[in-house]
Amino acid sequence: MREPKPLYVKDENLCLVTDFYQLTMAAGYFQNDMNRPATFELFVRKMPENRSFLLAAGLEQALHYLRHLHFSKEYIDFLRHHPSFKYVKGGFFKYLKDFRFSGDVYAIPEGTAVFAEEPILRITAPMIETQLVETFLLATINFQTLIASKAARVVLAARDREVTDFGSRRAHGPQAAVLAARACFIGGCTSTSNVLAGYELGIPVLGTMAHSWVMAFDSEEEAFRRFYNVFPESTALLIDTYDTLKAAGLARDIGLADKLLAVRIDSGDLLKLSKGVRRILDEAGLKYVKIMASGDLNEDRVAELLDKGAPIDLFGVGTEMVTSKDQPALGGIYKLVEQEWHGRAIPKMKFSEDKVFYPAKKQVYRLFNERGECKEDVIGLEDEDIGGVALLEPAMKEGRICIDLPDIKDIRKRALESLVHLPQGLKALKTTEMYPVNKSQRLEELKKHTEEGLREANKPALKRP
Amino acid sequence: MREPKPLYVKDENLCLVTDFYQLTMAAGYFQNDMNRPATFELFVRKMPENRSFLLAAGLEQALHYLRHLHFSKEYIDFLRHHPSFKYVKGGFFKYLKDFRFSGDVYAIPEGTAVFAEEPILRITAPMIETQLVETFLLATINFQTLIASKAARVVLAARDREVTDFGSRRAHGPQAAVLAARACFIGGCTSTSNVLAGYELGIPVLGTMAHSWVMAFDSEEEAFRRFYNVFPESTALLIDTYDTLKAAGLARDIGLADKLLAVRIDSGDLLKLSKGVRRILDEAGLKYVKIMASGDLNEDRVAELLDKGAPIDLFGVGTEMVTSKDQPALGGIYKLVEQEWHGRAIPKMKFSEDKVFYPAKKQVYRLFNERGECKEDVIGLEDEDIGGVALLEPAMKEGRICIDLPDIKDIRKRALESLVHLPQGLKALKTTEMYPVNKSQRLEELKKHTEEGLREANKPALKRP
Repeated sequence: MREPKPLYVKDENLCLVTDFYQLTMAAGYFQNDMNRPATFELFVRKMPENRSFLLAAGLEQALHYLRHLHFSKEYIDFLRHHPSFKYVKGGFFKYLKDFRFSGDVYAIPEGTAVFAEEPILRITAPMIETQLVETFLLATINFQTLIASKAARVVLAARDREVTDFGSRRAHGPQAAVLAARACFIGGCTSTSNVLAGYELGIPVLGTMAHSWVMAFDSEEEAFRRFYNVFPESTALLIDTYDTLKAAGLARDIGLADKLLAVRIDSGDLLKLSKGVRRILDEAGLKYVKIMASGDLNEDRVAELLDKGAPIDLFGVGTEMVTSKDQPALGGIYKLVEQEWHGRAIPKMKFSEDKVFYPAKKQVYRLFNERGECKEDVIGLEDEDIGGVALLEPAMKEGRICIDLPDIKDIRKRALESLVHLPQGLKALKTTEMYPVNKSQRLEELKKHTEEGLREANKPALKRP
Repeated sequence: MREPKPLYVKDENLCLVTDFYQLTMAAGYFQNDMNRPATFELFVRKMPENRSFLLAAGLEQALHYLRHLHFSKEYIDFLRHHPSFKYVKGGFFKYLKDFRFSGDVYAIPEGTAVFAEEPILRITAPMIETQLVETFLLATINFQTLIASKAARVVLAARDREVTDFGSRRAHGPQAAVLAARACFIGGCTSTSNVLAGYELGIPVLGTMAHSWVMAFDSEEEAFRRFYNVFPESTALLIDTYDTLKAAGLARDIGLADKLLAVRIDSGDLLKLSKGVRRILDEAGLKYVKIMASGDLNEDRVAELLDKGAPIDLFGVGTEMVTSKDQPALGGIYKLVEQEWHGRAIPKMKFSEDKVFYPAKKQVYRLFNERGECKEDVIGLEDEDIGGVALLEPAMKEGRICIDLPDIKDIRKRALESLVHLPQGLKALKTTEMYPVNKSQRLEELKKHTEEGLREANKPALKRP
C-alpha cells in the first residue's frame, strides 16, 4: 500500500510550481542564446467589477520564492525525461543545476492601494529567470491582493466594528487558508481563527466554541457552564444551537453570576436576534457583554445590519471574504515590457485584438491634492520627473532582498492609511467612481513608436524601433 | 533584516492549520473528562446553484493529514502561552504531546458523484480528535470537491475534445494550484500545465510558449522557427500575439516544411479565428495540425463554441475552472451526529432556525435501475438493509489507513464512470433536474425522536432521548 501524498509546496519543489511552458521557453531561450536581460511587469489589466481599489499584497511570499528557487537533481531528471525535452541539449540542465534568481525587483509595498494597469511588481533579470518565475509570482500576488482588497471592503462596511477572519474551512485548501488570513489582516481585519497565521505572523487568534460543543452536552446550560469554568476570562458563548433568545437568558445568568466576555449568533435573523439578545443582556446590566455575529456574512450584509441598527460589536466573516466570493479571481498578468540588446533597451508590447499593454520599464507616480488626498496616478517611464510619490520601490537587488521586510502590523497600518487618503467616493461599497490613472506623455509616445516598429517588423521584414 | 516567511503547510505544523476554537474546545473536553467517542459527518447542506452533481475529491490529502497530525513542543508552547489558555491545566498540554489520530474513517471514494446531505466522510474517534481535525478536513474536501465538480462540467461541455488545466496563476496561491490540478484531472481533464502536479501525480503536463516568447524576437516568424528547432516534435505555436491569421500563415509554412503539432489561439473571437485558421491549415493539407483555444474559457463558452462549429481540438481552461468562478466555495460542513455514552450511542442533531441536520451514523445507499443508471440515493442508518451500493467505505481503522489508495488515473476513471451512470438530464449545463436523495424511514423516525428529546432536555430539565 502506498503512502498518501500531501501535495505540499516547499523550498525544494518551488522549481516545479510553475506552468510547463515556462520551462520549455527557458530551454528555448537557452539554446538560442537569448538569455539577455529582460524586464517583466505584473499588473491587473482592468479593475474587477465592483472593486474601486485594490490593496497590493503577497510581496513577502514572492520574495521568499525568488530567494529560494533552485533546481535539485530529482526535479531536473524529471524534466530531462519529459518527452517534450527529448531534443533539448545537456547544457540547459546544467544551467538549471546552477540556477539562482539574480535579478532586480521593484515592488509597490504591500498594503498600498493600487489600480488597473499599475505595475505592482517589476522584474529585471536574464530572460530565463524572469520567465520561469511568472506563474508562482502571479499565483501569490493575485491571490493575496484579491483577498486583501475584499477584506478591506468588509472592514469598511463594518465601520468601527471589528472584523475577524473565520474562513479557513472554505478557503481553497490549507495553504490558501493561511495566506487568506494574512491578506485579511492586511485588509484591516483585527484577528483570525487560523492558528498557523497567529503563530507565524503574530496575528491575534480568536475562537471559543462551535455548535458541536453545545450539542455534546445534555443541555445548553451545562455546555455553557462547563466551558466557562475552563475559560473564565475569554468565553464567548455560542447561543444559536437550539433557541437563541432562550440561550441568551442562560448567558445572562452566567454573566450575572460571573463575568462573560461575549455571545455569538451564527444563524437566523441576525438583526432581530441581535436586538433581542442585546435587550436581554442590557436589562440585566450586562452592557459590556459583546455580541458577535457570523454566518454567511459579506460586506453588503454587514452594512445592511449596521444600517438597520443591529447592535453587533464584532463580525466573524468567512467564506465570502477568504474566497472573495463575488470576484474570486484577480486577473493579474505578467508581461515582457523591455529587453536589453547590446546595451540598448528595446521596448516590448503586444497588440493583439483585445490585449494591448504599454511597453518599457515604468513607474507609478501618485499625486496628492492639498488636503493630502490622492487625486491622480500617472504611469510614466521610470525616470520621469512627474512629482508625487513614486510607488515602485527596490525590493531585490541582484537576487538579494534589499528592503527591511515590514511587520504585518505595519503593512496593515499602511493599508488603513492608504484607504484614508483615497477619495471618499471610492470607498462606497457600490460606486461607479473610478480613480484617475493616466499615462505620461512620454509613455504614450513610446507606445506609439513601439507599435509602429513592431508592425513594420512583422511584415515580416526585420526592423527595430 | 528578517527573512521572508513562505507560510508553508507541512507535516510539522499541521496541528496549527485549524480554527482556534477547535483547540479551546479540545481543552474544554479534556478538562471536563468528555473525551468519549463521537462521530462527525462531513457533508454539503444543499447543492450550490448551477450544480446538479458533485464529485467527491480530496480524500487522499485528508488521510495524509490524519496520519501525520501531531503536536510538537514549539507549537504546544505557543498554545500554552496564548491568553485564552491561561487557566488550562498542564494535563491538556501533555495530552497534546502524545496526540495521534486514532479513529475510524468511512469515506465515499474520490471520483464518486455525491449530492447534498450525503456524508462524504464519517469520522468516529474520541471527541477531541474528531473535533480538532474539522477545519483541515473541510478545507481539503471542500476545495477539491468544488474543483473536480466544476472541471467535470467543463469536460462535459467539451464533449469528445480534451480539456487541459491552465489555471495555476489564478489559483488561490501556490498549493491551491497543485490541488486544483489534481481535482481537475479527477473531473476529467486530460492534462495540466502545473509541473508539480505532473511530478507528484503523474498527470500529463502540457505547454509550449507564451506571448513573451513571440515578443522576445524581432519577428513572429523568427520566434516560431527558433522554438520549432528546439522542440521539433512537440511544438504548439501561439499565434495570437499580433495578427492571428497572418501568424497562422507562418505556422502553415513551418508545417509544410517540417512537422507541426498544433497552434494555439488565446484571444480574440475564438469562433471566427479558429475557423479562419483551420481553413488556412486545411488548404495546405495540414489537417492533422490541431487547434487549441484558451483565454477566459468556461463550460458555457466551450459549449457555445462547439455548438457554433468552432474547429477546436483542445481547450485550455484556467481561471474559471480552478477557482470554480461561478461558485467559488463549497459549503461543506462537519457535524456531530452521535456520541457514545457508557456504551450507548446517543444520536445528536441541531435544530436552530435554518440549519437542521439528521442525527446518527449514516450510510448512503445508491440504487440503480435495470439499465444501470442511478435512480435514487437513500440516506439511512449505517446498518440498514436497503440494497443498492453502500457508498461509504472504510478508509481508516484505528488511525491506520485501511484502503489501497487508488492511482489518480483510476480516480479519474471512477469519476467518468460515475457520470456515465447519472441520469442524462443531470448532465446538461443548465438543468433544474435534481437527483432524488431520500431518507430511510428509520432515519426519519430517529430524527423525530432525537429532536423531541433535545427540546425536552433544553427546557432545561435534563432528559435523554
